[in-house]
Amino acid sequence: MNTKTKTPSDSASVLTNLVLPSETNMLNNLFGGELLARMDRISSIAARRHAESFQVVTASVNHVSFHTPVPLGSIVKLEAKVTRAFSSSMEIYVDVWIDDPMKQELIKTNNGIYTFVAVDENNKPVAVPQIKPETEEEIERFDAALRRKQLSLILAGRMDPKDAHELKAIFF
Amino acid sequence: MNTKTKTPSDSASVLTNLVLPSETNMLNNLFGGELLARMDRISSIAARRHAESFQVVTASVNHVSFHTPVPLGSIVKLEAKVTRAFSSSMEIYVDVWIDDPMKQELIKTNNGIYTFVAVDENNKPVAVPQIKPETEEEIERFDAALRRKQLSLILAGRMDPKDAHELKAIFF
Amino acid sequence: MNTKTKTPSDSASVLTNLVLPSETNMLNNLFGGELLARMDRISSIAARRHAESFQVVTASVNHVSFHTPVPLGSIVKLEAKVTRAFSSSMEIYVDVWIDDPMKQELIKTNNGIYTFVAVDENNKPVAVPQIKPETEEEIERFDAALRRKQLSLILAGRMDPKDAHELKAIFF
Amino acid sequence: MNTKTKTPSDSASVLTNLVLPSETNMLNNLFGGELLARMDRISSIAARRHAESFQVVTASVNHVSFHTPVPLGSIVKLEAKVTRAFSSSMEIYVDVWIDDPMKQELIKTNNGIYTFVAVDENNKPVAVPQIKPETEEEIERFDAALRRKQLSLILAGRMDPKDAHELKAIFF
Amino acid sequence: MNTKTKTPSDSASVLTNLVLPSETNMLNNLFGGELLARMDRISSIAARRHAESFQVVTASVNHVSFHTPVPLGSIVKLEAKVTRAFSSSMEIYVDVWIDDPMKQELIKTNNGIYTFVAVDENNKPVAVPQIKPETEEEIERFDAALRRKQLSLILAGRMDPKDAHELKAIFF
Amino acid sequence: MNTKTKTPSDSASVLTNLVLPSETNMLNNLFGGELLARMDRISSIAARRHAESFQVVTASVNHVSFHTPVPLGSIVKLEAKVTRAFSSSMEIYVDVWIDDPMKQELIKTNNGIYTFVAVDENNKPVAVPQIKPETEEEIERFDAALRRKQLSLILAGRMDPKDAHELKAIFF
Repeated sequence: MNTKTKTPSDSASVLTNLVLPSETNMLNNLFGGELLARMDRISSIAARRHAESFQVVTASVNHVSFHTPVPLGSIVKLEAKVTRAFSSSMEIYVDVWIDDPMKQELIKTNNGIYTFVAVDENNKPVAVPQIKPETEEEIERFDAALRRKQLSLILAGRMDPKDAHELKAIFF
Repeated sequence: MNTKTKTPSDSASVLTNLVLPSETNMLNNLFGGELLARMDRISSIAARRHAESFQVVTASVNHVSFHTPVPLGSIVKLEAKVTRAFSSSMEIYVDVWIDDPMKQELIKTNNGIYTFVAVDENNKPVAVPQIKPETEEEIERFDAALRRKQLSLILAGRMDPKDAHELKAIFF
Repeated sequence: MNTKTKTPSDSASVLTNLVLPSETNMLNNLFGGELLARMDRISSIAARRHAESFQVVTASVNHVSFHTPVPLGSIVKLEAKVTRAFSSSMEIYVDVWIDDPMKQELIKTNNGIYTFVAVDENNKPVAVPQIKPETEEEIERFDAALRRKQLSLILAGRMDPKDAHELKAIFF
Repeated sequence: MNTKTKTPSDSASVLTNLVLPSETNMLNNLFGGELLARMDRISSIAARRHAESFQVVTASVNHVSFHTPVPLGSIVKLEAKVTRAFSSSMEIYVDVWIDDPMKQELIKTNNGIYTFVAVDENNKPVAVPQIKPETEEEIERFDAALRRKQLSLILAGRMDPKDAHELKAIFF
Repeated sequence: MNTKTKTPSDSASVLTNLVLPSETNMLNNLFGGELLARMDRISSIAARRHAESFQVVTASVNHVSFHTPVPLGSIVKLEAKVTRAFSSSMEIYVDVWIDDPMKQELIKTNNGIYTFVAVDENNKPVAVPQIKPETEEEIERFDAALRRKQLSLILAGRMDPKDAHELKAIFF
Repeated sequence: MNTKTKTPSDSASVLTNLVLPSETNMLNNLFGGELLARMDRISSIAARRHAESFQVVTASVNHVSFHTPVPLGSIVKLEAKVTRAFSSSMEIYVDVWIDDPMKQELIKTNNGIYTFVAVDENNKPVAVPQIKPETEEEIERFDAALRRKQLSLILAGRMDPKDAHELKAIFF
């Protein structure tokens, strides 16, 4: 067991990059698959920085929504933070913005939730530090992470829905 | 409204490809981001073939799990099918296998669920044909798609959990 | 020697994919080099599935014609099948179509013929199963494969044109 | 008609490049598809320089053989020259070598033959200058180009084999 | 003229990313060309954020040194800041570190200096805000930027060395 | 010490290539980062051919200027030559032109100066042949290379400006 405690800010990782023609779809917006790959990269970086482990492996993409297309030529900023840690797995939240240099503002385009598992040199899971959320948003995401975990276990047939107390609570 | 009805097989789309060194992570397995991009490509193709529309746009990645790593040199087969259609959106299920040519067998590695929206030349949503599932697996995925849709709406704050009858049913 | 016999269908391999901006030439059509690479990938997959061998290596591209350009945004479908097997080499035929989702039809754009050699872990050629063609098209391609093989040997100075009976026959 | 005459050297174009890990297959040699793409690029350049036209389009890959694998880290040199011009089409010959900096020698690995058609701004074929071969090798390739052209027309069903005088001659 | 004044921090832009196999050279370190491209991307972003202009174009790479190789699998962090602005051009300094998650420390690997010019929709240079350096390092880089500018003008034959007072001063 | 002497022509290396859509920036010109990567590739090839060593590593990019943008669809020609060799390091000059096939002329767009160090199998620096410049341009670049070397050493704090005789001479 890992008795260390860290905050989401400790793992905050930023990837700012352009949208060039080689990264667009036929509507001249950032190609969905390219955005998913960037989110995967930055969330694995946040996970490794939190876990302080040899390596991490993607366990699942829990949810990625696409509200707003990101046009060719945009500056895109991704920030990933660990929201909650379990024994050897971590949930990572990635926020994505267009950074508009002329208006000097960030426009939220979408976000995603990934799960990674920390492993050692022999590819065996290792225990990771726990998360102590600080801001209101971090606390909210920390709580929701448990419900998402329960939902995942139910969908995978590894938890009886009746035992998912936190998840069930939202239905009443 | 679109009164046409189609089966999941009508949209079944296959992408068989290699895993070359440029597509691996540092553990010499297919890089997660590359696999997400391939899944995005083949599921958008299934969606366009079902919708018969000008174009489709990714609305969300609902869930992608990674059970088994895909080593360098593998033949990877992805098959995408529409599981259920709503007014202008479609849920797509992608199954991924390693095709082992020496053992002549398919090894299931993971799957993913994507949602796409059909749009016309002006980027406006258009109605899509409904789905009539045929096999047992198709029926099961068709039913689950509605629960996943309700869950999505709840998480987005656009549905009261109390009204999600199909979803609530699994907890009792 | 390999006494097994297989059909072209046994090796049939399909690669359906999009044409994104990063894969076009300056006329906004699929770049020839990218199409050649996709054909090489899917035909090597068909060859490995037929050979059941450790690996295959490209021996030659016998012919690739380009009738119809493939515009940006198209869905492109490639299907590769082994047409004929010799001792350790195999001829692969790749057909390429645009899959038009709005008209729901396949438009043939071009085809290619590749030769691969099956090798073992030490990179030594290994014997492959023979081909038993089934359909009329498969029989026609099976017969033509022998003439192409003779032509190749003549061009490489490894066969006396006078001994190329099947090939000579087409001139009279 | 284009009454200009040029030599193969006038179009000689050279592409020297490395083989990096992102360009290899699983045997750590230059991936066949990547080599085909490089050959396509440099032969289209030779064709444009010969044709002095707005653009050229790939008509066919007539033959590419692979004698010797090109290992990771190699310096690869491609040279393309027009061997013969017809009305608006040109045959291009590409030679490929490994340039070994320690032994200071070029090692021939393979070659390829491509056909391109010159087009104007409206994508219509335009007449190209004729070729006057100079060296012995250029004359030999110039003569063989006509036989390859006849073979192509026969295979496409656009020439009666009985009329392919130059081609038939090699069988007697 | 642009009378606005901004600090280097106002333009600070961060690009954290992995080194995957497709981005290495044959010594299994980050390929120099790939690192140059990443530095170009993040410094153009810092320049656009400082200039608040429609677009920026690379004028020159003044200097990039490579002290320490960056091995496969590393987390690489680049930070770019504007060091000094002239009428429409800006000098950007990019620092590069390996972020070691196990030791939880940043290891400086190299840095680079780029110059960009801000342009409007018609590709005409536009005036940019001036820089007011704050930290000791920022002041030092601000002063050195003028000497580098003078050196550039001399090398381009657009300044008489005798007039480069700040630059000459370092020789006495 | 290496007592061999070679000319710049001995290492002259040419990389002619297209500008495809996947290699452009949002102004539809060759992306700066892609051009830097091509310059890095061809100058490392010139360095290896001069050094006859196992491998070379990039030490620095001394200067790259961008005079003229290179539009989509251009043929771009890069030529790299060693200008001067020191004990184990070499300065490489890369010239870049657009090769216009319709006007049949080369248009100079920019140039760059790189430094590489030759290393053996154990990654240790090895002595390289010295350069004997032949043409007027080669002599001029050979002389300037020494001044650039002195400037580099001063900027790195490894030479007292007072001892940089060749460099100081340009100021008086």
